[in-house]
Amino acid sequence: MTEENQDEPLIIVSNRGPAKFETGPDGEMVISRGGGGLVTALSGLVAHRDALWIASTMTPEDAEVATENGTEPVEVELGGVEYRVVLVESDPRAFDLFYNLIANPILWFIQHYLWDLSNAPDIRLEEIEAWNDGYEVVNRDIADAVIAQIEGRERPVVMLHDYHLYTAPALIRAARPEAVLHHFVHIPWSQPDSWRVLPGWIRERIYDGLLANDIIGFHTRAYCINFLSCCEHLMGYEVDYEDLTVSHPGGKTAVRSYPLSIDAAGLERAADSPEVAEAEAELLARRRENLILRVDRADLSKNVLRGFTAFDTFLSQHPEFREKVTFVAHLQPSREDVPEYAEYLERIEALVAVVNHRHGTTDWMPIDLKVYENFHDALARYRHFDLLMVNSIFDGMNLVAKEAPVINTRDGVLMLSENTGAHEEIGDFALTVNPFDIQDQADAIHTALTMAPEERARRARGLKEAILSRTPGDWIDEQMADIEEVVLREPGA
Amino acid sequence: MTEENQDEPLIIVSNRGPAKFETGPDGEMVISRGGGGLVTALSGLVAHRDALWIASTMTPEDAEVATENGTEPVEVELGGVEYRVVLVESDPRAFDLFYNLIANPILWFIQHYLWDLSNAPDIRLEEIEAWNDGYEVVNRDIADAVIAQIEGRERPVVMLHDYHLYTAPALIRAARPEAVLHHFVHIPWSQPDSWRVLPGWIRERIYDGLLANDIIGFHTRAYCINFLSCCEHLMGYEVDYEDLTVSHPGGKTAVRSYPLSIDAAGLERAADSPEVAEAEAELLARRRENLILRVDRADLSKNVLRGFTAFDTFLSQHPEFREKVTFVAHLQPSREDVPEYAEYLERIEALVAVVNHRHGTTDWMPIDLKVYENFHDALARYRHFDLLMVNSIFDGMNLVAKEAPVINTRDGVLMLSENTGAHEEIGDFALTVNPFDIQDQADAIHTALTMAPEERARRARGLKEAILSRTPGDWIDEQMADIEEVVLREPGA
Repeated sequence: MTEENQDEPLIIVSNRGPAKFETGPDGEMVISRGGGGLVTALSGLVAHRDALWIASTMTPEDAEVATENGTEPVEVELGGVEYRVVLVESDPRAFDLFYNLIANPILWFIQHYLWDLSNAPDIRLEEIEAWNDGYEVVNRDIADAVIAQIEGRERPVVMLHDYHLYTAPALIRAARPEAVLHHFVHIPWSQPDSWRVLPGWIRERIYDGLLANDIIGFHTRAYCINFLSCCEHLMGYEVDYEDLTVSHPGGKTAVRSYPLSIDAAGLERAADSPEVAEAEAELLARRRENLILRVDRADLSKNVLRGFTAFDTFLSQHPEFREKVTFVAHLQPSREDVPEYAEYLERIEALVAVVNHRHGTTDWMPIDLKVYENFHDALARYRHFDLLMVNSIFDGMNLVAKEAPVINTRDGVLMLSENTGAHEEIGDFALTVNPFDIQDQADAIHTALTMAPEERARRARGLKEAILSRTPGDWIDEQMADIEEVVLREPGA
Repeated sequence: MTEENQDEPLIIVSNRGPAKFETGPDGEMVISRGGGGLVTALSGLVAHRDALWIASTMTPEDAEVATENGTEPVEVELGGVEYRVVLVESDPRAFDLFYNLIANPILWFIQHYLWDLSNAPDIRLEEIEAWNDGYEVVNRDIADAVIAQIEGRERPVVMLHDYHLYTAPALIRAARPEAVLHHFVHIPWSQPDSWRVLPGWIRERIYDGLLANDIIGFHTRAYCINFLSCCEHLMGYEVDYEDLTVSHPGGKTAVRSYPLSIDAAGLERAADSPEVAEAEAELLARRRENLILRVDRADLSKNVLRGFTAFDTFLSQHPEFREKVTFVAHLQPSREDVPEYAEYLERIEALVAVVNHRHGTTDWMPIDLKVYENFHDALARYRHFDLLMVNSIFDGMNLVAKEAPVINTRDGVLMLSENTGAHEEIGDFALTVNPFDIQDQADAIHTALTMAPEERARRARGLKEAILSRTPGDWIDEQMADIEEVVLREPGA
């Protein structure tokens, strides 16, 4: 950053902000921290320099705060970090279309290859309207809020986040050609043919929207390559696979990989709380010889069904493990408004019933399915698993694969899908599986539960070292360094 | 071809051969021509030079012929062309696993992006066994038959066909390092991530199998690029996107596009038969002002459901067309042993019932669904459509889009999916649609049925010219020219 620039707040933009306003049990306003690795990762940045966070309202109380304060930032202190937040309220119908018809499921499904193409999606007037009157409207609202905040500043820096905001950058760029725009995409970037489910004109809005940024960041180099390939084959733009750049009518955009890391110290602190100790005590009272664990949002991309089928296969092929292993599946409810998700959860429950019926005994329920949100219980389980199952179909990064091994106390083994972003960094110390290969996953369960203690220890050590070798600070610093280079160039150069 | 080489038979290898032996109504042996554009396309080649065709047995009578003749070619005359055929019988269980578990659906589904990944496929012991004891066994049998036929020849030329025979080339190459191997893939080649549903070791067998060829041919340049991208990103091989070559441990393989054409003269002759005239008379007696037609195998890739939904939308949005349009959907039953196909046909029938119920009247059934095989009826319909719907999700080439316009007599309009191989050649004269975009297809129906006669005539003329500008002879000649170049090189050079 140049001296001059240091004095001006950095603008962070994401769909969900760092703070959520709600009404407490006694009618008072309660402020809680927004969920997800994004807020954790960026809080280090916010703690050390002047930043302003722009986000959409999520609750009625958020909307009240937005109405009261308008473009004036609200100051919020959470976990020792002071945030300055501007909340943007969109028309509720527009937000619903944006969120429940376009971002989830359409974009999410495309980028995780989840569409069952012979059946869905159908692009009808409804979806076209959801694009025009939903996604574009919310992006316009967010872009307007950004434009208002950077008014009068010569070379403002704006960092946008994720798949909710693909078209906002072009709107900001049109108003402020000299702004420095950076966009980090937290989910995979899928290959060109997967984007063909969208009408050409929507694809153009997405790509030209994103390419209005100076820099686009992804978790892995593979996603960068996929993005370039899309720009080449869907848009006909000139790309450079060595320099990782796209040349387009609006200029040149750099595409970079910045793998997100976890805040290990914060995680250790959280795991040392009395609530976690209590959850651990309960878990230890009931634990069998072997504990298999998965902790995921109940999302189709997480591959929950095949994980249970693999466990079913393992129990059939290795009856000696009967009554000696419990598979705790801790699923956080997610997107229950999207029909595909409600249906997925039903199928999960049905499959668990089948597997428990097939293998269970009076004294033993092989799969313990818990569908709820509880961070302390998750941390307690992280501490005591023997095998952590991360078998995602496709997964941008997967932070559970980085968090759980760091605080595990049993040299627990990590089963890791080769299609996760995390696999690029820590795959060497995991049992790599193909997420579609049931037998491979059943074999990995057996390998993990019969692994020699020295080998478990070696792998657990390797995992921790690899995970701890990067911090969220590195993630931020690499992005800021690239942004600084752009700031120091002439605008438009 | 060199002089010396001209005297030796060219070996053609495909799963289905040019002739099918069956028992006729009076117990006599009946020989009929094998179906598909492949046989048509290659018959020109077979007519003009010495060729030997190796194929799997399809019927019990085929198997009898195989047993009687062993490696001795059978001579068969069909449609004025003399074929020399060697039929190879595999173990029936191996053939069933090869055909019904691996080739269809697994490979077909991968290459047409048909897997609903959060549900299927599951790679279990069953699938692994089907690979080892099915696909590999049939490929071994075919390879052995090829090796037997080329014994003692210095520089034999072998042309293999399609997705049934991906591993045979490596087996032939191992036995005969100096053979010239050419493989044409008739279906799309999909992008790298779609192949990740297969275990890594099966992917390696497929890619190393195919790369044992000197040349691999596809219908379009886009499939060549996808194949190279797979070799680069799945196998780590060095590829050249300019020269279209792959460098691998076994050498260097050229990847080329040869778009398949239709035999227009043969089609005209067939359409001039009394059977077609009779079918036309019946069709004309019942035709409404507008006839929409689709003729397809009942395959998930053909996008039959969305075609009907688009017609449903069109009828709702344009009630002025009520009772003035019939949508004849002529579907040829296909792969009824594969559960996904049986289910697809059920869903097609259910949707037709819904649309007919919603819009039909006492005197008018909007969709006329015909599920049967009848070439004469298809030709009669080709002659009289006003709009031909080809809206495939993904489609290697789609020969219906080339055949029907050539003999159509009404300046019929072609609706053509942008994801068909044919679109690269004839898209300019079609109404291009996005196969997932229902509204786009509904709009295209309206555009076609309200198009000015001059515009229809202009497009119909353009279509015919573009289609007739290439013949199956060109397709063959281009491949033979490339083969000749390899033959003239030193083996292994």
